[in-house]
Amino acid sequence: MNKPTVTVGTDNSLRTPEEITLDPSDWQTFRKLAHQALDEAIGFVENVRERPVWQAVPQEVRDQLSGSLPIEGTPIDEVYREFKETIMPYATGNIHPRFFGWVHGSGLPGNIVAELLGAAMNCNCGGRDHGAIYVEREIISWSKELFGFPTESGGLLVSGTSMANLIAIGVARNSVDKNIRVAGLGALQKGLTAYASAEIHESALKALEILGLGSSCLRKVGLNSDFSIDIAALRQRIAEDRAAGYQPFCVIGCAGTVNSGAIDDLDQMASLCAKEKIWFHVDGAFGALCMMSKRLRSRLKGIELADSLAFDFHKWAHVQYDAGCVLVRSGDLYRETYTSRPDYLHQIGRGLGAGGDWPCDFGPELSRSFRALKVWFAFKEHGADRIGELIDQNCAQAEYLAGRIKAEPLLELLTPVTLNIVCFRFIKDGLNDAALDRLNEDIVADVQESGVAAPSTTRIRGRLAIRANITNHRTHRSDLDTFVDAVLLAGQLR
Amino acid sequence: MNKPTVTVGTDNSLRTPEEITLDPSDWQTFRKLAHQALDEAIGFVENVRERPVWQAVPQEVRDQLSGSLPIEGTPIDEVYREFKETIMPYATGNIHPRFFGWVHGSGLPGNIVAELLGAAMNCNCGGRDHGAIYVEREIISWSKELFGFPTESGGLLVSGTSMANLIAIGVARNSVDKNIRVAGLGALQKGLTAYASAEIHESALKALEILGLGSSCLRKVGLNSDFSIDIAALRQRIAEDRAAGYQPFCVIGCAGTVNSGAIDDLDQMASLCAKEKIWFHVDGAFGALCMMSKRLRSRLKGIELADSLAFDFHKWAHVQYDAGCVLVRSGDLYRETYTSRPDYLHQIGRGLGAGGDWPCDFGPELSRSFRALKVWFAFKEHGADRIGELIDQNCAQAEYLAGRIKAEPLLELLTPVTLNIVCFRFIKDGLNDAALDRLNEDIVADVQESGVAAPSTTRIRGRLAIRANITNHRTHRSDLDTFVDAVLLAGQLR
Repeated sequence: MNKPTVTVGTDNSLRTPEEITLDPSDWQTFRKLAHQALDEAIGFVENVRERPVWQAVPQEVRDQLSGSLPIEGTPIDEVYREFKETIMPYATGNIHPRFFGWVHGSGLPGNIVAELLGAAMNCNCGGRDHGAIYVEREIISWSKELFGFPTESGGLLVSGTSMANLIAIGVARNSVDKNIRVAGLGALQKGLTAYASAEIHESALKALEILGLGSSCLRKVGLNSDFSIDIAALRQRIAEDRAAGYQPFCVIGCAGTVNSGAIDDLDQMASLCAKEKIWFHVDGAFGALCMMSKRLRSRLKGIELADSLAFDFHKWAHVQYDAGCVLVRSGDLYRETYTSRPDYLHQIGRGLGAGGDWPCDFGPELSRSFRALKVWFAFKEHGADRIGELIDQNCAQAEYLAGRIKAEPLLELLTPVTLNIVCFRFIKDGLNDAALDRLNEDIVADVQESGVAAPSTTRIRGRLAIRANITNHRTHRSDLDTFVDAVLLAGQLR
Repeated sequence: MNKPTVTVGTDNSLRTPEEITLDPSDWQTFRKLAHQALDEAIGFVENVRERPVWQAVPQEVRDQLSGSLPIEGTPIDEVYREFKETIMPYATGNIHPRFFGWVHGSGLPGNIVAELLGAAMNCNCGGRDHGAIYVEREIISWSKELFGFPTESGGLLVSGTSMANLIAIGVARNSVDKNIRVAGLGALQKGLTAYASAEIHESALKALEILGLGSSCLRKVGLNSDFSIDIAALRQRIAEDRAAGYQPFCVIGCAGTVNSGAIDDLDQMASLCAKEKIWFHVDGAFGALCMMSKRLRSRLKGIELADSLAFDFHKWAHVQYDAGCVLVRSGDLYRETYTSRPDYLHQIGRGLGAGGDWPCDFGPELSRSFRALKVWFAFKEHGADRIGELIDQNCAQAEYLAGRIKAEPLLELLTPVTLNIVCFRFIKDGLNDAALDRLNEDIVADVQESGVAAPSTTRIRGRLAIRANITNHRTHRSDLDTFVDAVLLAGQLR
């Protein structure tokens, strides 16, 4: 089509005297402050070893962070000063080499650059036709490649695996009956049931609750000794449910459980689901990225057969928070669940309103930040191989830590170390289980409060465990020695 | 309690020769690159008027953004150069003073600083006890204050109003029957029904679909001439549904519709809901922030009575994407819907695992970025009054634009201008409605492609409209003149 060209005077920046803006009145002063902040931000990461892993927010700071809505503005250099006093010293701690709590990535200095650039562009990645959308498509394409998903599958960047689980299980639910989207679940004759190992992450339950299926629809299946799902028990439970009139619709495989890093036999689960015609979803929050490790990827065999997959870039790829991803094998079923285009989002063939699939077609969010940019910077700068090597390093460090624990008479290893998570406890003669639970909870808090290291807690077969997760590219073996020393000291001081 | 103190040698940073990291090998070189990027990022915003509002991503750039997963790394200065060539020039456009598409905020230079600092801290705001959690609580507290919500209400920062609607309507659904969370919707005897004006945002429908209620449960109620909901028709529809055996559970009020910025009579809706014992949710995506305008806040009367409220900081408060918020009056009902604490998230009295309510107790997300920081910087630097004055300025500019349109014989205003949105079209003798629709769609694409301005399209009473939304702190009246000139020229060239 021959397009007419619109050109009018565009250098028109006349401002009526009363017109105001939120831009700085003096860009040079602003620029100076921004460079100072950048310098200190980089120093904050570079010198992280000089600080405690974590420190509690003091009461006077909590009070300062309980103020009223600001009515008047404050010069940004004063705002920055307040930030440095009341916020910056009290970070979560996960950028520190001795942060071993929960499963937290440690972040990338290069992502400071990505985030400041993203903030300048300030894209809204819900849809429309602009560069950020192509970057997100590229990340989704890389993800398909990494996990062996077909080109026609769909994907989306989300805050994390919890959101990804919700979105994917939503597609699984709607794939049961095309009427669900319009008519709701009331139209279903049979109760839908879902299956996962007893070690399944809580977010799957939450997803089922939000989707209106209720947490009771999830059948938690027993475990093998390595904490992976017992496939025979899974098969049997599905058969029992069918016999009782339920409609099994989704099996969730775990690629890296939170408690011990166990990986289910995804290949066998995929076969079972194919035979039973049940949706196979994989929760691969951190374990899925083992696909980048030449040593570990074979343990994920079968992941390429999943109907959907959830995982996080902010964990073992160390992308800044937050950056998760969902992939759904059938792009069509995916669109049928979430695509809807009201008049004001109507696509046109060209201009800003063009561009094929929009991210809002693949999930509940319409306003979306440009989180693809930090993933793009992370993989461009470091490459999948290097990230995979660091995964291997963390797993080797976990083995080293387990070795240290086994060698200490006062420490007891509570789970086999199969990946990067080490669960153990301090033991003391004459204490019953309840007292040992309290002691170990105290030890964890003591060690956290000391600033030396930050493990977390969980329960393994009912017993409170000190849980060390090593998803950290800054950790050295010597940090693990320091951590063990701190736990021993805390236990002995109690 | 008397706490023992753990102190061990923490200066231990010995690295075994083979241990690697993703940190820069040379921080000085990295620092230099980061400062260069910051300089250019600030310039990108400062000089935005010198560039087209938007430009299409050329095919060769699309090709470059379709590469394979990077296996090897690349020095970050080369990654940055690639970014500058293939990504930076193709932003959404909403930071430009002549971006009038959809409802997009234009961003704040100060948020570049907030984002780079947030990237350095790299907090995970799902929970635990650290500074970022207190900052988010402060933002929620400011929000309660702004909207007259009680202290005991709960709130959460989310990506935007779409997510906020989903979360709030989820609480409304579960408040009907405490068994829903566990037993799912199958246990309900009566069909639940929801109500909103015909101008309701699509995200409410999507929320109902995801929640398993089905889009058919939403009753779209007719409008007054100002595009606000017809309260008498709402009352009647509720009565009819009750008579037919349905269970009305939620009424959604609009505070600023997408098509025309109409604000429902929230006060009357609140009274009706109180009388009928129906949950009253307000979708205030951009309109709710009129609360900061001394001139406009009276039009939101009744918003303080809502059971839940969804709105965006990234729209009329210009916080960088994404930053939305949900408030729920009853903190208890809110927790009953979403709180769940598996073993590994078990709270302890002190240390990192302490801290009362965690954000993950209020929604589906567990991994969450530190988006509170940019909201904090925005309100600290500018204050609510200034942001409110800019809202007034945008509304006055919309009136000015409407005046210009009324004065042009070739342009026709399609909706009353009640806030900041102006819907109009170019008219040409001898063209029927279908032809005028095509013409106006072409005009919008022509103007976008010219780079002069970026309006969007919608349909008003079935007719395609050029839609100009002014949620932009950089727009001057002269920009609106330029925009009108561009539309007239494009129409005449066709």
